[in-house]
Amino acid sequence: MGIEIERKFLVVGDAWRAAPAVPYAQGYLNRDKQRTVRVRVVQQQAWLTVKGANAGATRAEFEYPIPVADAEQLLALCDGPLVRKLRRVVVHAGAAWEIDEFQGDNAGLVVAEIELPSEDAPFEPPPWLGVEVTHDPRYFNSSLATAPFSTWPEARGRA
Amino acid sequence: MGIEIERKFLVVGDAWRAAPAVPYAQGYLNRDKQRTVRVRVVQQQAWLTVKGANAGATRAEFEYPIPVADAEQLLALCDGPLVRKLRRVVVHAGAAWEIDEFQGDNAGLVVAEIELPSEDAPFEPPPWLGVEVTHDPRYFNSSLATAPFSTWPEARGRA
Repeated sequence: MGIEIERKFLVVGDAWRAAPAVPYAQGYLNRDKQRTVRVRVVQQQAWLTVKGANAGATRAEFEYPIPVADAEQLLALCDGPLVRKLRRVVVHAGAAWEIDEFQGDNAGLVVAEIELPSEDAPFEPPPWLGVEVTHDPRYFNSSLATAPFSTWPEARGRA
Repeated sequence: MGIEIERKFLVVGDAWRAAPAVPYAQGYLNRDKQRTVRVRVVQQQAWLTVKGANAGATRAEFEYPIPVADAEQLLALCDGPLVRKLRRVVVHAGAAWEIDEFQGDNAGLVVAEIELPSEDAPFEPPPWLGVEVTHDPRYFNSSLATAPFSTWPEARGRA
């Protein structure tokens, strides 16, 4: 078991696009925020991940590697559509930011996450960092499967 | 991934009690029969298991060993009370029967399961075999967590 402490932000501009992008596909065997069960495929690797309830930016996380062939079949068992995104890792001031550019029904949404040793650990905001959305459940990947960004008023405002 | 083909029966008499009994504890991260996610601890071993929807006696099953320390924490994340049972394996006419004697709120319920190569594969019924309940969803372990045997009319009839 690990404890995951992450803060999540929107992203502005395009400076982050230079980093190489890796396609992620993921689905949920349970989207209940008390016990999320995620299947994730990244190129030739796959994982089954259980996460407990969020307490602020902190969450218990249990992650197990599984065969990709299993994962492909598990994705077919998942509840709701899959979430697909391109992930880039951008290092800024010594910290690794994960930037997820969502695809499909979530196209137009880009979020950046930083993993921290404690909830109040300091970090230097990169120039492309937008507003924080850590505590907004609409941005949970498990929510984006069933209530994708394209259905939000924010997305319509962009069109 | 495996395909699980099992038939399930009630058990009568006591002849099966001579076999050694191993305690099982299990809980569910999802009880949805389309995508059951089970955490199981058996002595010093533990597994995370995903099962798909039943099609007759057949079900897709994906099982992964996990650390017992993880499993203990995952059981605490589970939805509903844990299912506890004593499992015995009894060999009859060359076939291994798994006999589960439930405990706690499911005390009084004893079921026997046989794994088969096909749904219509022949087998020799042991003398302690009762009626078949393969297709009765009340007997799913995932159901017994939230609708235990003690709450059934059958159980009250036995008291």
